[in-house]
Amino acid sequence: MAGASFLAGDWGTSNLRLYLCDEAGTALDSAAGPGAAGSSGRFEAVFSGLTAAWRQQHGALPAVLCGMVGSNFGWRQAPYVTCPASPEQIGAACVAPADAASHGAAIHIVPGLSCQNRFRAPDFLRGEETQILGALQLDPGLRRGRQLLCLPGTHSKWAILVDGVVVQFNTAPTGELFAILKEHSVLVQRPATEPAAANDAAFERGLQQVNAFPQAQLLHRLFECRSRLLAGELEAGATASFLSGLLIASDVGGALPLLTQSAACAPVQLIGAPPLTALYAKALASQQFDARQLDGASASLAGLTRVFQLLQARSSQRAAP
Amino acid sequence: MAGASFLAGDWGTSNLRLYLCDEAGTALDSAAGPGAAGSSGRFEAVFSGLTAAWRQQHGALPAVLCGMVGSNFGWRQAPYVTCPASPEQIGAACVAPADAASHGAAIHIVPGLSCQNRFRAPDFLRGEETQILGALQLDPGLRRGRQLLCLPGTHSKWAILVDGVVVQFNTAPTGELFAILKEHSVLVQRPATEPAAANDAAFERGLQQVNAFPQAQLLHRLFECRSRLLAGELEAGATASFLSGLLIASDVGGALPLLTQSAACAPVQLIGAPPLTALYAKALASQQFDARQLDGASASLAGLTRVFQLLQARSSQRAAP
Repeated sequence: MAGASFLAGDWGTSNLRLYLCDEAGTALDSAAGPGAAGSSGRFEAVFSGLTAAWRQQHGALPAVLCGMVGSNFGWRQAPYVTCPASPEQIGAACVAPADAASHGAAIHIVPGLSCQNRFRAPDFLRGEETQILGALQLDPGLRRGRQLLCLPGTHSKWAILVDGVVVQFNTAPTGELFAILKEHSVLVQRPATEPAAANDAAFERGLQQVNAFPQAQLLHRLFECRSRLLAGELEAGATASFLSGLLIASDVGGALPLLTQSAACAPVQLIGAPPLTALYAKALASQQFDARQLDGASASLAGLTRVFQLLQARSSQRAAP
Repeated sequence: MAGASFLAGDWGTSNLRLYLCDEAGTALDSAAGPGAAGSSGRFEAVFSGLTAAWRQQHGALPAVLCGMVGSNFGWRQAPYVTCPASPEQIGAACVAPADAASHGAAIHIVPGLSCQNRFRAPDFLRGEETQILGALQLDPGLRRGRQLLCLPGTHSKWAILVDGVVVQFNTAPTGELFAILKEHSVLVQRPATEPAAANDAAFERGLQQVNAFPQAQLLHRLFECRSRLLAGELEAGATASFLSGLLIASDVGGALPLLTQSAACAPVQLIGAPPLTALYAKALASQQFDARQLDGASASLAGLTRVFQLLQARSSQRAAP
């Protein structure tokens, strides 16, 4: 296999996805491994094991890793870069693990970002910075003017970019709340046998219920998952999808001040797992906002490639007379 | 012991509290037993066992029971009375269990209430109707004009009364959300050894943070439990109290439209466990609203007594020529 140039790794809490890439960031091969939580104390061994065959075939290649591998329970902590943060600043703040000599080439861990959010609270992200860099790489239009990006997930992020620089973001633990309510709350009816299938109509209904009363607080609407079931308005298998509609509409509704400040008619850039970005796109459409969807894994790979290229450019500059 | 007149029972999901009462509702003795969830299929045996000594001493006495004993997993389902609901209508809708002949006197199970809430959603309560009747009994001032009552708990209720009639209410699962976030969320730091003590300063800070941005959605503020810890602004043991402040302020903030519609300067009547009503009183005070606090157990007993008296009056009317 010719043209292998670097290794890219998205090493989150629960999963590691490694790619063997050519210079342009095209994945020539891939491998999966344990997340940062499951790699505690043996990051070097996990990485070395998964990349041994590539090393044998292509020699030692530099690697760029993002995600929780850089957290305080990761391979090495990569400090947060304070917003406003440009792609160049993010690339320049990569760190190398101390115990990676056996790899034979440089390993770069991408830093997270920190900011003071719109509620004057400290806010943090790690992993999403790389997806944002990837989106900027894949869509040059995002590098101009004010842009709103939404990265839904366990801890959803709403990020504001100005001329390609991340100026501020806000975290909403929408996915985590959905998961723990679905699992532990009496508000959600859990089928005795199999997991409930996604119910589009119930999701849409949850959206509409929240949109109809934009000033209401989520706490005053959540009980409807149960009360509408008791009243015979909702089927037992539909309560989780209805809850999903309530939560995502509340997340999007709370972000409306950000949306209306966006560049005229600029669509919101959604980045994440396609089934989830599709739900956010529906919620945005229900508020008359357009959205573009980008797969989170593609965004990560493009972002890791961008960081690799930035590091190469820095290295060339240094080497120049 | 002289003057025993009836038995009053608050039979919730998790606990049963029984009282031997005189005609005025003063408790002469009390007993505790398993909640409705733990009494499934053996309500008659549980009740009969706990009241045997009283029956022996005072003969068979009528009983009034409220709470989940009247739910679809209770002793007998007592249908919800539709709002507007007066004390008389609530008393008239009591039901008797079929298998209580061994008790030797009437057993009355108090119905719950249903309404269409301010978000045009069906809403339900069971148990709180009795506490509301108790509050009306203990404070005649509550029987006049428009009054706002708040019954905080696992599923908090905001109830509007007009001239002593419950006209509408809204459920907020604030307590349930706090409990499951505290137990299951990564947002709350759980001490390794002992439970975190309540931290008044952190609670107040949570209140202030929410109050400072009244238009914000709770989802966009919850991450602060974690981010302020990461930023060194909050101690690990204080995140649960900070979360409590965020949630209660959001619950109270969402109820502001109800508060401002209240009769001029009428304080909010809080009913519940004293430590919890104290937190709601603080949240209301932070929004410049006065509150009165009433212990939930006292309210239940006063409400059960009121129902007993209403049933006696009905029975006398029927007996009259």
